[in-house]
Amino acid sequence: MDQVIQDVHMNGGTAETSYSANSLAQKTAILITRPIVEEAILNILSKLYNTTTISAATSELRKTTIGIAELGCSSGPNALLVVSYILDSIYNKHFQSGSATPEILVFLNDLPGNDFNTLFKDVGGFCDKLRRTTGDGFGPCFVSGTPGTFYGRLFPSDTLHIVHSSYSLMWLSQVPHGIEKTNKGNFYIAKSSPPSVVTAYLNQFKKNFRVFLECRSEELINGGKMVLIVVGRSSSDPTSKECCSFWELLALSAHDLVLKGAIEKEISNSFNMPAYFPSPEEMKSVIMSEGSFTINRIETFGVNWDGSGCNGNEKSVTNKLISSHYIANSLRAVSEPLLADHFGEKIMDELYGRFMERIEEYAATEKN
Amino acid sequence: MDQVIQDVHMNGGTAETSYSANSLAQKTAILITRPIVEEAILNILSKLYNTTTISAATSELRKTTIGIAELGCSSGPNALLVVSYILDSIYNKHFQSGSATPEILVFLNDLPGNDFNTLFKDVGGFCDKLRRTTGDGFGPCFVSGTPGTFYGRLFPSDTLHIVHSSYSLMWLSQVPHGIEKTNKGNFYIAKSSPPSVVTAYLNQFKKNFRVFLECRSEELINGGKMVLIVVGRSSSDPTSKECCSFWELLALSAHDLVLKGAIEKEISNSFNMPAYFPSPEEMKSVIMSEGSFTINRIETFGVNWDGSGCNGNEKSVTNKLISSHYIANSLRAVSEPLLADHFGEKIMDELYGRFMERIEEYAATEKN
Repeated sequence: MDQVIQDVHMNGGTAETSYSANSLAQKTAILITRPIVEEAILNILSKLYNTTTISAATSELRKTTIGIAELGCSSGPNALLVVSYILDSIYNKHFQSGSATPEILVFLNDLPGNDFNTLFKDVGGFCDKLRRTTGDGFGPCFVSGTPGTFYGRLFPSDTLHIVHSSYSLMWLSQVPHGIEKTNKGNFYIAKSSPPSVVTAYLNQFKKNFRVFLECRSEELINGGKMVLIVVGRSSSDPTSKECCSFWELLALSAHDLVLKGAIEKEISNSFNMPAYFPSPEEMKSVIMSEGSFTINRIETFGVNWDGSGCNGNEKSVTNKLISSHYIANSLRAVSEPLLADHFGEKIMDELYGRFMERIEEYAATEKN
Repeated sequence: MDQVIQDVHMNGGTAETSYSANSLAQKTAILITRPIVEEAILNILSKLYNTTTISAATSELRKTTIGIAELGCSSGPNALLVVSYILDSIYNKHFQSGSATPEILVFLNDLPGNDFNTLFKDVGGFCDKLRRTTGDGFGPCFVSGTPGTFYGRLFPSDTLHIVHSSYSLMWLSQVPHGIEKTNKGNFYIAKSSPPSVVTAYLNQFKKNFRVFLECRSEELINGGKMVLIVVGRSSSDPTSKECCSFWELLALSAHDLVLKGAIEKEISNSFNMPAYFPSPEEMKSVIMSEGSFTINRIETFGVNWDGSGCNGNEKSVTNKLISSHYIANSLRAVSEPLLADHFGEKIMDELYGRFMERIEEYAATEKN
């Protein structure tokens, strides 16, 4: 899958379904985009400095609260990763300049169903480590959790300096209306989907992403920035295999179980993923038409679902098998909550077992 | 037990143990103090109006964010009760004046071990209800959860307009140092405790409460207010039965199990509650010596652990028995996490069973 990074610069910044994304692939994407996040925060800090007289910098900045939001943070090992990079950058910048660091307010957001209890236990360790490593040189850092959809307002106006989100914005607030009867046998856009299904998916994405931008434009300060990592596609074709093939294999796996009588045909036919994997052009178009943000950069890079880079080298059969297992497990982690809700918990092992076999067969015939 | 209310007015907050307090008694206390909370928020709103020109009031206040913190909120039915009163007051005030309501940021705080998952599910319903009842007449209300001890900084400087806490500030950050060997056989201050134990408890309370005030004085805006409901005592005697008798009964119940060989003597002897039930004078003294706050009012009122008021009327034997059950269950809810941690989960039913018997015996001989 291709990742679309957006380093979106604010000129003046709805319903979501975010799930624990594959942590390996997400971590790779976060590492790749670290310099972009750092550049964004340093840019914000330098603006803060420029609007503060040098003599007042120490005391004034101490009272300035830098607002950071991690949207769709989930509760896994990546939830605090980007926040830690941002805090490192702020600390280093202030350490070099000899000035006191500002106060920092971090909001960790995800849907109310997210495991905030686990996340908050990690926050305690995170804050303790921060105090140990930076000592008194760091201004206080406050962490709160915000339950709710990022396709709606989450924070007060002019509160945030930087917004980060990875592996979340491809989730739609809902399955597009009206496709249940026209996209039978598919779980997402597929080669066999009629054009109306493709249009319905794109329109739902546009609607959601526009509301996302509108809400963030209210919440970000003037000059605030967003870095968004979206699981998308590089091709302009929304039915291209880079974004559709795994979901086709999952739909085929369900169909296999329909044939075995383990799943009812009606139930399999009525499932569609509330997700859309946009192209950079589609994202750009929504950002430009919404109008609150300018795009500093928009880039695509390849990360496989097993966390490895897409370098085009053919893998050995053994490696392909290992990758297939990773991929199947990763996609299971991402999609199982939705499928379990629709098909029932009981059939999940069998369905994803068949899915892994289909991925292995696919890996044996396709380049990664 | 007597409750000490403090309506503390800000002129210019470390380690906590907060548990789900008895919801009935806490609810009664919250209902009794509702007018004080309302008066506090209306006072804040009127100051906000006075510092805003009439013509600019609508748009300016829309951008003003009113910060509200509920400290030691737990995750029970009372967690959002006071917040709802505060929001009602803000809404009514603005509805009457015809102006738009400001944006509101609510922080729900408790220790990281609190069940924030359950709390956040309630928050969703709370916000939906708010939107249904107030419609577009209400500015957006944002709710976040803040894990951490209120005996330390939790929020950025100058963020909060009103701080509320009920049934939490009697919890100390730790058992006072050095009492393990001198307070054997007691779980709290008792008639048989040496003076050094009483002093150690009071000093720990003073230290914790002072830090609490220091921290909140940083976080509250100038003119911000706190309403604190503390489970305390009206007597100046820290060994008075109003705050000590139930814990003596609990210690005696443990001693009964020691005699039966069900609990080791050493283990029973080494337990002490990390709690202190202050008198109004003790609270006043810390507030005045810390110096950041002035006291608008400090009042005591009686609420039994079963949620009934202390009106001095003698109860029937049946009512006393029912009350004893409520009281035993309430005190179990409050103290069990601590005792289970020290004595082990397994003995809890037996210990609290014996405790209930002892409360029944006590109720039969004492006035409530």
